[in-house]
Amino acid sequence: MSLTISQVLKTTTAQTLGALKGVLAKGQAHAEAIGVEESVFLNARLAPDMFPLVRQVQIATDMSARGASRLAGRDMPSFPDTETTFAELIERCDNAIAHILGTSDDAINANADTVLEIPAGKDQTMPMTGTAYTLSFIVTNLNFHATTAYGLLRSQGVAIGKRDYLMPPGAEAL
Amino acid sequence: MSLTISQVLKTTTAQTLGALKGVLAKGQAHAEAIGVEESVFLNARLAPDMFPLVRQVQIATDMSARGASRLAGRDMPSFPDTETTFAELIERCDNAIAHILGTSDDAINANADTVLEIPAGKDQTMPMTGTAYTLSFIVTNLNFHATTAYGLLRSQGVAIGKRDYLMPPGAEAL
Repeated sequence: MSLTISQVLKTTTAQTLGALKGVLAKGQAHAEAIGVEESVFLNARLAPDMFPLVRQVQIATDMSARGASRLAGRDMPSFPDTETTFAELIERCDNAIAHILGTSDDAINANADTVLEIPAGKDQTMPMTGTAYTLSFIVTNLNFHATTAYGLLRSQGVAIGKRDYLMPPGAEAL
Repeated sequence: MSLTISQVLKTTTAQTLGALKGVLAKGQAHAEAIGVEESVFLNARLAPDMFPLVRQVQIATDMSARGASRLAGRDMPSFPDTETTFAELIERCDNAIAHILGTSDDAINANADTVLEIPAGKDQTMPMTGTAYTLSFIVTNLNFHATTAYGLLRSQGVAIGKRDYLMPPGAEAL
């Protein structure tokens, strides 16, 4: 059986943003348990010139939700970057997941071979087929930012393990 | 155009293990420039109970190279976990990339719908189709460990950016 880019995108989204919600919920519980303001965790960084946790989650959701829209030729969802709590970040993940899973498979897959101009910073764009954009950009960026969020919380003492990253809470198998 | 699991695996490997080589080379250059033993970086961790850099790279390569073999029904490659330098870790990435790219597409794709029993720790296995194993296990684990290696070096002051993670050195486009 062969795959489609929609299947790749939706499988990765459900898994990785779903798991990220669980990781964030454990961060929230940890902050409450030790009596530390959530903002301490949301502003934590792995290096002084890296984005803090809140931004890692914002980018992970933007890359995937806006990516789904770009692939499908839909209007881009706009999430204002205003989250100041774990609950708001979890809600943002929920909104992104709903947006991506609700995007038409046919509309996404119709652009598998279409060359898209992907924004690459500083007014530059990079031409990529829908397939390359999905595999080498969206999935890679989503995992990059979600893992960085995981590592940040791990470095701050939150008791999470790789299983929390690999599977959404309650998932029985992959 | 539809995708195959071999295409997903090989694209991700060439991109992510290729980029990891570049990230490790920058780590090596940084250690030399500041006159610090490479072992300091290879043993760095993001949290006391997380694996150090050397192990992150070993797992990233094992997951993908052994995964390619499992998908294709081939003998598993065995890499002794003896690396003590950046150069040896880069060589390990090269060996893993060569193994994966050299694995038969047809042999891999023949198992897209086959249910494989994937080792899941403590004598347990988890049943997954070849497709689920590729998308939800190999690609996810590879990115997880490669991003953790990146974050570790970043937290130790190595001057790398997301472009180093997204593209192997010298790659002109994704």
